[in-house]
Amino acid sequence: MMPPKSTTYLLKQLRLLMKNTTYVPKALHAYIIPSGDAHQSEYIASCDQRRAFISGFTGSAGTAIVTDTGAALWTDGRYYLQASQEMDENWTLMKQGLPKTPSEAKWLNKTLDVGSVVGVDPYLLESEWWRDFARELQGGGHSIIPVPENLIDIIWNERPPRPAKSVVPLEVKYTGLSHTEKVKQIREDLVEENASMLIITALDEVAYLYNLRGSDIEYNPVFFSYAALTQNEAFLFINKGQLTSAARESLQEKEVKVIIKPYEDLPKFIDEQVPLQSGKIWVSNHASHAVTQMIPEEKRLSKLSPVAVRKAIKNSTEIKGMEECHIRDASALCRYFSWLEKEAIKGTQTEISGADQLQKYREELEDFVGLSFSTISSVGPNASIIHYSPSPETDRIVTTDDIYLCDSGGQYKDGTTDVTRTLYFGTPSKFMQECYTRVLKGVISMATCIFPTKIKGNCLDTLARKSLWDIGLDYGHGTGHGIGMYLNVHEGPMGVSWRSYPDDPGLQEGMFLSDEPGYYDDGKFGIRIENIVRIEKAETRYNHRDRGFLTFKTVTLVPIQTKLIDPSLMTQKEISWLNDYHAECREKVGKLLLQEGHKDAYDWLVRETEPIG
Amino acid sequence: MMPPKSTTYLLKQLRLLMKNTTYVPKALHAYIIPSGDAHQSEYIASCDQRRAFISGFTGSAGTAIVTDTGAALWTDGRYYLQASQEMDENWTLMKQGLPKTPSEAKWLNKTLDVGSVVGVDPYLLESEWWRDFARELQGGGHSIIPVPENLIDIIWNERPPRPAKSVVPLEVKYTGLSHTEKVKQIREDLVEENASMLIITALDEVAYLYNLRGSDIEYNPVFFSYAALTQNEAFLFINKGQLTSAARESLQEKEVKVIIKPYEDLPKFIDEQVPLQSGKIWVSNHASHAVTQMIPEEKRLSKLSPVAVRKAIKNSTEIKGMEECHIRDASALCRYFSWLEKEAIKGTQTEISGADQLQKYREELEDFVGLSFSTISSVGPNASIIHYSPSPETDRIVTTDDIYLCDSGGQYKDGTTDVTRTLYFGTPSKFMQECYTRVLKGVISMATCIFPTKIKGNCLDTLARKSLWDIGLDYGHGTGHGIGMYLNVHEGPMGVSWRSYPDDPGLQEGMFLSDEPGYYDDGKFGIRIENIVRIEKAETRYNHRDRGFLTFKTVTLVPIQTKLIDPSLMTQKEISWLNDYHAECREKVGKLLLQEGHKDAYDWLVRETEPIG
Repeated sequence: MMPPKSTTYLLKQLRLLMKNTTYVPKALHAYIIPSGDAHQSEYIASCDQRRAFISGFTGSAGTAIVTDTGAALWTDGRYYLQASQEMDENWTLMKQGLPKTPSEAKWLNKTLDVGSVVGVDPYLLESEWWRDFARELQGGGHSIIPVPENLIDIIWNERPPRPAKSVVPLEVKYTGLSHTEKVKQIREDLVEENASMLIITALDEVAYLYNLRGSDIEYNPVFFSYAALTQNEAFLFINKGQLTSAARESLQEKEVKVIIKPYEDLPKFIDEQVPLQSGKIWVSNHASHAVTQMIPEEKRLSKLSPVAVRKAIKNSTEIKGMEECHIRDASALCRYFSWLEKEAIKGTQTEISGADQLQKYREELEDFVGLSFSTISSVGPNASIIHYSPSPETDRIVTTDDIYLCDSGGQYKDGTTDVTRTLYFGTPSKFMQECYTRVLKGVISMATCIFPTKIKGNCLDTLARKSLWDIGLDYGHGTGHGIGMYLNVHEGPMGVSWRSYPDDPGLQEGMFLSDEPGYYDDGKFGIRIENIVRIEKAETRYNHRDRGFLTFKTVTLVPIQTKLIDPSLMTQKEISWLNDYHAECREKVGKLLLQEGHKDAYDWLVRETEPIG
Repeated sequence: MMPPKSTTYLLKQLRLLMKNTTYVPKALHAYIIPSGDAHQSEYIASCDQRRAFISGFTGSAGTAIVTDTGAALWTDGRYYLQASQEMDENWTLMKQGLPKTPSEAKWLNKTLDVGSVVGVDPYLLESEWWRDFARELQGGGHSIIPVPENLIDIIWNERPPRPAKSVVPLEVKYTGLSHTEKVKQIREDLVEENASMLIITALDEVAYLYNLRGSDIEYNPVFFSYAALTQNEAFLFINKGQLTSAARESLQEKEVKVIIKPYEDLPKFIDEQVPLQSGKIWVSNHASHAVTQMIPEEKRLSKLSPVAVRKAIKNSTEIKGMEECHIRDASALCRYFSWLEKEAIKGTQTEISGADQLQKYREELEDFVGLSFSTISSVGPNASIIHYSPSPETDRIVTTDDIYLCDSGGQYKDGTTDVTRTLYFGTPSKFMQECYTRVLKGVISMATCIFPTKIKGNCLDTLARKSLWDIGLDYGHGTGHGIGMYLNVHEGPMGVSWRSYPDDPGLQEGMFLSDEPGYYDDGKFGIRIENIVRIEKAETRYNHRDRGFLTFKTVTLVPIQTKLIDPSLMTQKEISWLNDYHAECREKVGKLLLQEGHKDAYDWLVRETEPIG
């Protein structure tokens, strides 16, 4: 285990800067270092990992706050242990989710003398978060101010440069719509809302709109940029050097020629545009406080970006691509599991070496670009850690005596995949079988349900849990997230969880979601079965008030290990669903495996897809 | 049909007042007349029906806005027809829920010249509503101001006086806890939140806290009042004359002697208290803007009242009372349905005469006080109108050729009931049977589900709909509401609906909810089956992470008409549930019917509770 990062000198430097009015508008009594980047991305580039730099804590979620005398870091239950190991004695760990842990604002209100000034980089906080935070601090008699220059960047000597990798066009044969067609759709959305301009701040929205892909952030084929649209013009703000000549050319379609401006020019641009715009200027409610504040409140429409909704509803080309890449992706998984099964008997492979092998199989596939996230390859107790990622310190051997959970995905030019399978290479216990079967019943319950158009995703969450609840079990994560088409593996605005998604526009035909219940027996084993499902029209006998009824088509086609199933817990309908599903896996993936000459994997597939019941 | 109310003269008077600075702080360009009273009650006294007075529209929900030249009324789909019939040509009907209908604020922003002033009685709007409304109006360049004197009251010549009926104590044998014990519990809640004072504005919260009941509002055993608590004192603001001597005496318990002050004194009281209070002053987020504003923002805790949560969780005495009054209530319904079945053959009774008969049977019951809401007694097409209430114009004869839906309830000293049964006295169609059976499957699915402690009620909604969704049907209302113990028939803060209840504290043992799916075939027939259910501990094999699992016990004990059931659509488990339920009805209600000598009703009950399947 690595020793904690020594932060004494860094904190000293930061505290000096907090009082140095060359860098701050006013002397600060506290400085907040959030996890995010200027685009509120889920995954961030290393140059944006400022919170990790100052605190030493490298987990994906957390907020650091430094005051004149203290330093505190908030993170959730996934990371209590890791954070306590990675941080030195300068830091206090604030365990989010425990009833006694105060929120950041409550803590500041308790810690600071009345009338204190709290500073933060306004690009790194969502406008809604800023608003609520500011209100709470005001309640305690303090103020929050934007600090234009990021203080961490000043003290971070070896800060990696901002990535500026090549940005390439994605052909219409993959996207289904040219950027001209997409721009026209969004312009209709603007008219609906009496908005004359839209500012786009989310990286995947820019990539989607202009049919471009990059690799500035690991696993996410996006690039640092902003975009803006009016009824007559379309803008892209980007480090121009990143655009390949093909990309530049692709932006010059006959009807919509995209105007390219430097990434840094957005503030100046908005300043110039505000007086010119007759209608509202639309900016996402998830945009940074900095960008949001550039638009005067009376001219601002702060609301979910229309690009987010259009992007979530896949067109027929995107649907075809998503389905095809899932078949190819399944072939890699079949090869991997059939190989791993033999290795497990010998005990020659580990979580990490297994994940590497799986990546190799994926790399052989047509249109493969990279992984869509870091593979969760986990054995036994490690599988009970929901967001586990194997490291040399925790790596375990894959054996026949332990459960193996593998959650992985690929980026292909025609789609993104995300699939979890749990296998037991030896003889599972009765309890494991019961848990696995109930998780599977949840998968099937969601996959087969019929529901009215535009109900919110959270309405379906209980269907996936009911069978576990029946015996007093549950899982501590949501049931489903949206997924991009060769874009981010987690994509909004809808999702399926016991929590409601405030921006969920309602479930609609053409959306893709994951369907992934699980069960985690802390310190012993973990089970998750994850398929990607597509929303399609349902055939119902009636159609009450013309609401239109929908259901799911399962797109992931990887066998679900029948050895782990107790068929006596399943209904005849559920068994039929599973057998039909396996027949489809055999037909579609089997065909590909044979074509490519993977006879061993084919034989494994045939065995694993034998009908049960 | 009555002609619409003539409002020309009234609007002229109102518009004069809107410019008369004797009555308004500033000349108004628009005046809002909401539906509510100063306590944000669901049911309101006739003196508070100001919106009905000015517009002519008498429905339960709606907002009127009068500008210099226009008058508009917003109401929802239940009332489009009624509102258009009741309002004269001065009024524009704004159909809420249609995509093209602007919200009140959007309409004002479009209608008014920039810089206009909008006035409203600040007691009649919830503080959160006011805040959002003010923000939207500001966006349009307008302002909203409180108008202390209600302008409608000035022009309303024959306005009924505010009710001031007797307020009596409710004995501890019904409430389970003395007011001293309740006050102590709430004081603990105050400590938790660092609040030194609580202001209570909801009428049922005052009634609950001090164990008092009144009858100022029809169907709701409440009285006009406020309350306030500190760690040392307890206050009741009420028209003192309403308190009987027994009530006054009951308020003088040894440990907590309630200080009685005039109803009108609340503003003065808060003014005096603000500088004296060291901690926050807690006021419900549902309190009026007027009361909320009396507390300076930095001293204010605006959050769901702790009384609302305590009141929702019934103690063992309340549970016993609720269960017992449901048995008595069921005996009245058995007498009614057995009587009505014979009358239906003759065609001698109508929706109204039937409802009257049911009330007579209820009036004979021990501890009966009154109805808990206006009985929905509806035949055939009338049953498809969800919030139907029979009137002489719409009254239909109960026959053997039409469905009969009856939704009714009583107030008893030991509890409140609310039950819906749908019956067919002739031979129902196959389609009706299918719909009825699927509604019943929904009732059973919710009643039998097991779930972790403190999940929100909206997580259960889909269970009640799934069987209808399967064939493309649905219903346009929520699935369950809380219910009071000899208090309001609709009680928060939790509920079961596809919409989330923002204040839902999570489902907990001792809460009571309704379980009432339905199906409505517009203009043809309607089906609803409604039981009251109590949350109790579930026996589960496991108890994951000690979350504690819960389930429901059905408290309503009225037969569910088996003639309308198609057993082939039910699982064996569902049939067993129904047969067990009917056995319990027969045992508990049958016993009472025999004791009271109601042999006909008993025979009917025995026949209706024969096991099926």
